[in-house]
Amino acid sequence: MPDQFDLPRRLAAEALGTGILVATVVGSGIMAETLTKDVALALLCNTLPTGAILVVLITVLGPISGAHFNPAVTLVFTGKRELPVNDAALYVVAQVAGGIAGTMAAHLMFGLPLIDLSAKIRTGGPQWFAEAVAAFGLVATIVAGIRFQRAAVPWLVGLYITAAYWFTASTSFANPAVAIARSLTNTFAGIRPTDLPGFILAELCGAFAAMLLMNWLLGPPQARGPIPIAETTL
Amino acid sequence: MPDQFDLPRRLAAEALGTGILVATVVGSGIMAETLTKDVALALLCNTLPTGAILVVLITVLGPISGAHFNPAVTLVFTGKRELPVNDAALYVVAQVAGGIAGTMAAHLMFGLPLIDLSAKIRTGGPQWFAEAVAAFGLVATIVAGIRFQRAAVPWLVGLYITAAYWFTASTSFANPAVAIARSLTNTFAGIRPTDLPGFILAELCGAFAAMLLMNWLLGPPQARGPIPIAETTL
Amino acid sequence: MPDQFDLPRRLAAEALGTGILVATVVGSGIMAETLTKDVALALLCNTLPTGAILVVLITVLGPISGAHFNPAVTLVFTGKRELPVNDAALYVVAQVAGGIAGTMAAHLMFGLPLIDLSAKIRTGGPQWFAEAVAAFGLVATIVAGIRFQRAAVPWLVGLYITAAYWFTASTSFANPAVAIARSLTNTFAGIRPTDLPGFILAELCGAFAAMLLMNWLLGPPQARGPIPIAETTL
Amino acid sequence: MPDQFDLPRRLAAEALGTGILVATVVGSGIMAETLTKDVALALLCNTLPTGAILVVLITVLGPISGAHFNPAVTLVFTGKRELPVNDAALYVVAQVAGGIAGTMAAHLMFGLPLIDLSAKIRTGGPQWFAEAVAAFGLVATIVAGIRFQRAAVPWLVGLYITAAYWFTASTSFANPAVAIARSLTNTFAGIRPTDLPGFILAELCGAFAAMLLMNWLLGPPQARGPIPIAETTL
Repeated sequence: MPDQFDLPRRLAAEALGTGILVATVVGSGIMAETLTKDVALALLCNTLPTGAILVVLITVLGPISGAHFNPAVTLVFTGKRELPVNDAALYVVAQVAGGIAGTMAAHLMFGLPLIDLSAKIRTGGPQWFAEAVAAFGLVATIVAGIRFQRAAVPWLVGLYITAAYWFTASTSFANPAVAIARSLTNTFAGIRPTDLPGFILAELCGAFAAMLLMNWLLGPPQARGPIPIAETTL
Repeated sequence: MPDQFDLPRRLAAEALGTGILVATVVGSGIMAETLTKDVALALLCNTLPTGAILVVLITVLGPISGAHFNPAVTLVFTGKRELPVNDAALYVVAQVAGGIAGTMAAHLMFGLPLIDLSAKIRTGGPQWFAEAVAAFGLVATIVAGIRFQRAAVPWLVGLYITAAYWFTASTSFANPAVAIARSLTNTFAGIRPTDLPGFILAELCGAFAAMLLMNWLLGPPQARGPIPIAETTL
Repeated sequence: MPDQFDLPRRLAAEALGTGILVATVVGSGIMAETLTKDVALALLCNTLPTGAILVVLITVLGPISGAHFNPAVTLVFTGKRELPVNDAALYVVAQVAGGIAGTMAAHLMFGLPLIDLSAKIRTGGPQWFAEAVAAFGLVATIVAGIRFQRAAVPWLVGLYITAAYWFTASTSFANPAVAIARSLTNTFAGIRPTDLPGFILAELCGAFAAMLLMNWLLGPPQARGPIPIAETTL
Repeated sequence: MPDQFDLPRRLAAEALGTGILVATVVGSGIMAETLTKDVALALLCNTLPTGAILVVLITVLGPISGAHFNPAVTLVFTGKRELPVNDAALYVVAQVAGGIAGTMAAHLMFGLPLIDLSAKIRTGGPQWFAEAVAAFGLVATIVAGIRFQRAAVPWLVGLYITAAYWFTASTSFANPAVAIARSLTNTFAGIRPTDLPGFILAELCGAFAAMLLMNWLLGPPQARGPIPIAETTL
C-alpha cells in the first residue's frame, strides 16, 4: 500500500505522525501533572490521549507510509523484506526528527523552553525487562493483527499501548524514536538521556523476540503432516 | 450525501448537532467541577463525554448535513468546492445559533442563569499556538479520514478531540462556533469574550495550514514519474 | 428481526437485558461509593461500566427482542407501528420486572438487603428538564442510528449514555423501568420513590419530542420540489 | 477455525494469551496501587488496561486457538462438542501454566519476588454469588456474541469485563486459570489461595447456568408452532 505514495510523502507522513504522537505523550503529561498531584490520575490522563491518538494517526497515515512511527517496527518490516533498507534508514531519520519536533511543539504550546533535558531516572533490570516486554507485545500485536484483521490494526495498537502504559513497569515507551524525543523534556513523560541506550536496546530485543515467535506461531501448520500435492501445485 | 436532504433539514442538523455538542462540553464541565476539586479529574470528566458525543452526533447527523458543527470545517469544505458559499454562510449561522442554544440548555439543566459571560482568561502566544495546532490536527484528521476510511470519521474525530483536550495547552476548542458559545458560560468550559478573536483567528490559521498540507500529502504521487498511458485512458 | 424469536424468548431477553443493565448501574455505583470519597470519580466509575454493558447487551440481545430495555423506547417503536400494542405491554412488564431483579441481584452481590427504598432527592424543574433532554437525545440517537447505520446502534447508545451521565444534571436515567428499579436501592444510583412520577413523565415527554423531530428531520426531502414522475412510478 | 493451526501452536496461543492477560491484571494493579491511595482510582486503572488487552488478545490469537484463556470457557465449548476432551485438557494446562508465568513476568517487571502468595481475603456468599454472576455474564456474552456477531466478540468480552470489574462485588475474576495465577501475587489483584476453591466453583456454576439459559434462548423458535414441511425438507 505504501507504494501508492512517493518517498517524500511517506517520509512526511512518518515525521508528522511521530511528531503528533510525541506531542500527545509529552503534552498530555505536562497538562496532567500541572492539574493534579495524584500520579495514578496523571498517568491515566497521559494514557488515554496516547491510545486515542494512535488509533487516529495509524488510520489516517497508515495508507500513506504504513504508519510505523517507530524504528523498531520499521526494522521488523525491513527484516520481513517488506521495506528496502534505504527506505528504512530514511524512515528512521524522519521518525527521530519528527519526534523531536513533537517535543518542541508540546513545549511551545505550554510555554516551556523548546528543549529541556530530562532528569527522570529510568534504568535497571526490571525497567529493561519491562521495555522488552512492551516492545515484544507491540510487535506481536502488529504482526498478528496484520495477518488476521488488517483493518483493526489502528485499534489494536491504541488499545495495546493503553494497557501497556500500566502493566509494564516502564510505562511502555516501546519506541526508540519516541524515547529519544522524550529525553528532551524535563516533564512527566521524560527519560534521562543517559538511560536511553538501555531502553533502546531492550526495545530492539523485545521486537526481535516477537518477530521470531510470530514467525513460528503464524507459520503454516505443517506439523500436522505432509502437504497434499494438490495444495502445493496450486 | 448532503444532497439527499433539503437545506432546512441540513441547517436543523447543524444547529441541533452543535447545540448538543456545546451542551455536552458545558454541561459535563459544570457537573465535573461541582463534584470534584481535582482539576485533572474534572478535565477527564469533561473530555470523555465530549469525545463520546462527537462519535454519536457525527454518525447520526453526518448523513443529513455532513456534520460539520464547526465554521472552520465548513470553510475547508467550501474551499474544496464541496459546499456552495451561500449554504456555507447559512451553515455557520446555524452552528453559532445552535451552539448558543446549547449553552442555554446546559444552564437550564443545572439551574443557572441562561447566559453568564465567562471571566476565564485564555490568551497569549502559547494558547494561540495550541489552538492552531488543535484545529490543524482536527482538519487533517477529517480530510485524510474521509479520503481513506469515510465510515471511521465519527470515531476519528471523537478520538482526536479526546487526545487534543490534553495535549494542547488550550484544551482544544478548535471550533469558532463552540468558542463563541463557551464565552457565554462562566463555568469550567468558559472563555472570556475578549479572548475570542485570538482563539478564532488561531483556529482558522490552523485549519488553513492543514488544508494546504493535506492537499500536497494526499495528492497523486506524480513525483514517481509520468503516468502510464493505460492508466490515463481508463 | 424480532420475528425470528417467539414472544417468551423476546420477553426473557428484555427482562435479562434490563436486569443486567440495572445490576450494572446499581452495582458499579455501590462499588464506586465504597472505594472513594470523590463524587466525580464515583460517577465516572458508574458511567464507564454502564456505557460498556449497553454495547454488550444491545449487541447480543438486540437480534432477539430489539433490545429496548426501556418502556420509552418500546413506546416509540409501538408508535411507529413496529411492535403490536399487546407485545409492547408485555415488553414493559418484562422490563420493570427484570429491572427490579437487577437491583436485587446487585444488593445480593454486595451483601445488602434485597430491597431498600432510596432517600435520594431528585426533583425540581432543572432535573425534569434534564431528564427530558436525556430521553430526547437517547430516542433521537436510536431512531437516526437505525436509519443510517443499524449495526452501530449498540455503540451509539453506549456512547450517548456515557456522555449523558455527565451533561444532564440528572445523570440521565432516561428510562422509566430503570428509574423504578433504582428507587429500590438506597445507594449511589438511587432515586426517592416519590420523585419517580416527575422523572418518568419528563422521560416520556422527551422521547415523544424526539419522535416528532426525527419524523420531520429524517423524512423524505420533498421540500426541494415535486418528485419526478420516473421516481414515483418506480 | 482452530483447525487451521496445529495443536502445539494452539496451546502456545492459549498460554501466551493467558500469560499476557494475567500480566496485565497483576501488573496494572501493582502500578495503580503504587501511584495512588484512592482505591476506586486504582481499580479504574486496573480495569481499563484489562478491558483493552482482552480486545487485542482475542483479536490476534482467536484465529489460532479460539482465544479461550479460561478453563470455564473451554469447558463450555467442550460441552457444546466444539473441542475434543483431550484438547480441552491440554488447553486448561496451557492456560494455568501461562497464567502463572504471567504473574511471574509482572513481578519481574516490577522488581518483586517471582512468587508471593496472596493474603487478600475474598470469600463468603456475596463474593461467590458475584463470581457466579460474573462468569454467567461472560459465557452468555461469548455464546450469544458468536451466534449473532462473531467479529465483535473481542470487543464484547473486553467491554463486558470492563463493566463486570465494577458491578460484581468480586471484581469479576470469572476465570479459574486467572484466579490461580492471582493467588500467587500479594498485590492489588491477589486472592488468598485458600479462597480459590469457592471462587472456581462459583465460576463453573455461573458458566454452566449461562450455557443452559443460552441453549434455550438462542434455540430455534419452535414454540410458535409446527415447522412447515417445505422447511424441514430443505
